Amino acid sequence: MSRERGGERHIPMGEGAEFDAIRAMLGVWGERAAGIGDDAALLDLPRGVRLVASTDASVEGVHFRREWLTSEEIGARAAAAALSDLAAMGATPIGLLLALGVPDGWRRAIPEIAHGVGEVADQVSCPIVGGNVTRGHDLSLTITVLGTVARPLGRDGVRAGDILFVTGRLGGPGAALAAWLGDGVPRSEHRTRFAGVRPRVSEAQWLAARGATAAIDISDGLLADATHLARASRVQLEVELAALPCMDAVTAEEAFRSGEEYELLVAFPSDALPDAAEFERTFALQLTAVGVAGEGQGVEVIGASVETPHGHDHLA
Amino acid sequence: MSRERGGERHIPMGEGAEFDAIRAMLGVWGERAAGIGDDAALLDLPRGVRLVASTDASVEGVHFRREWLTSEEIGARAAAAALSDLAAMGATPIGLLLALGVPDGWRRAIPEIAHGVGEVADQVSCPIVGGNVTRGHDLSLTITVLGTVARPLGRDGVRAGDILFVTGRLGGPGAALAAWLGDGVPRSEHRTRFAGVRPRVSEAQWLAARGATAAIDISDGLLADATHLARASRVQLEVELAALPCMDAVTAEEAFRSGEEYELLVAFPSDALPDAAEFERTFALQLTAVGVAGEGQGVEVIGASVETPHGHDHLA
Repeated sequence: MSRERGGERHIPMGEGAEFDAIRAMLGVWGERAAGIGDDAALLDLPRGVRLVASTDASVEGVHFRREWLTSEEIGARAAAAALSDLAAMGATPIGLLLALGVPDGWRRAIPEIAHGVGEVADQVSCPIVGGNVTRGHDLSLTITVLGTVARPLGRDGVRAGDILFVTGRLGGPGAALAAWLGDGVPRSEHRTRFAGVRPRVSEAQWLAARGATAAIDISDGLLADATHLARASRVQLEVELAALPCMDAVTAEEAFRSGEEYELLVAFPSDALPDAAEFERTFALQLTAVGVAGEGQGVEVIGASVETPHGHDHLA
Repeated sequence: MSRERGGERHIPMGEGAEFDAIRAMLGVWGERAAGIGDDAALLDLPRGVRLVASTDASVEGVHFRREWLTSEEIGARAAAAALSDLAAMGATPIGLLLALGVPDGWRRAIPEIAHGVGEVADQVSCPIVGGNVTRGHDLSLTITVLGTVARPLGRDGVRAGDILFVTGRLGGPGAALAAWLGDGVPRSEHRTRFAGVRPRVSEAQWLAARGATAAIDISDGLLADATHLARASRVQLEVELAALPCMDAVTAEEAFRSGEEYELLVAFPSDALPDAAEFERTFALQLTAVGVAGEGQGVEVIGASVETPHGHDHLA
């Protein structure tokens, strides 16, 4: 399926369960997915911008278990994780494509999954422009997001002397996972941080407009993602454990390793820092200085003995 | 992973099996994937074109069985199937994103799969701009392709009176599948048509430049895809069974239902037909008139009693 902007609502499609599944999703998405039905989607870009593209998979048994999330949350979380990569570039979303792999037992949940995807796409005004449905042993949502950006926020822009900030409060998703994996029940606010991810699209654009030099979204854990940022920028990052903004009932060490946060780690020149109070008023979200960049390489953690950096690895 | 055009070759990445898998693929792709490593890919579009995007999944046990294909062919076929949707729009590929789901037993095959994807991307000069690797029970390749087009070839442009053409000779993939599913061995030329798909990108652009009014790629079978075309264009299509260009040892009925051909079904005004002989000289590929569009709906098959149209359905 695919979508043409400004074209007719839905180009009629063929028969069969695959098309039924697509029709069910289109029914849920309505105008958000107007025009889907040709071989590929057509989109128009304004002048003077660059195209940004990223693809991200959410697989049952790897990224979540079915007993942890509602079908709607599964869709919403997958969309938010994918859109978070656009956010980290400072980009504006212009289109989302959903490739759904569906075991037979999940087929009835397709409309709810689609609803979750649509809700998050709506949050960031992103049209749904295409997709694909196929049978599989795993429930999997592979979501490709397209966006535009005039001045991209890369990972390689941190300079020695820059100050590092993180958005939000960390540790919720890690704590929720730890509770579930220990056969417990996560605290409500931890579960919400895992199940109700919000892509920080507007937040990143606000930060980019105020002179951020680099950004990455925290998907592998702050420690691992800071390591990616340090490598790409060829600097050393010093992060102060005591400075980390943590969720309640989470230690700084736990917050430091908690993955799938989808908050932003962002750098600013020390002589042009953002107004954190204004950020917090605008987005009802903390913006906290957590460290500084210097000459060297890797991540140095101040205030703790942290072992070899590694984050969340979906093949480990 | 992702890619920045014109940026440095590869932005350094983190540790772990996931990154090892990505590094292995980048090693195979080399310059084709230069710059991958930020949160998302950056691409520049020339002025005056529209962006085309499509996503397509290839899943073991649904689209192929491992004993049918080499790892390289699995990668090549998935890429060709995805790029075929761009071809059907008359688009020029500008980027491919590969989301790979890998069972543990397939991990060592990743470089060969990547090689196959890279080979087909090369055939159509398409850079590999991003991807994702995750563990899964199914080997799955979800490939998103991006392209540009000035004048898109939609499904909805057929007018009553138009003449329908197909590229190539049909029936090979269906015959190969029938042989495998019957525990037999396909004829070599049938197997090649299944395993060695080529996206008809240049062919479609040639046809678009000569005034084609609409096109679709034959993925569900000529009968089913003609039905899609008829519905989208709100016309009836008459297809002459005796006119179908068939592979050796394939009946017209078999060719009519054979899916995953990735040939083109394309329409031209009857007073401005393409020069089939020139097409064949240029591409070493047949171009055959197979029918005509008229008022009405659906597909009428001349020369056979064909039942309710249905094609390949991945959820059936």
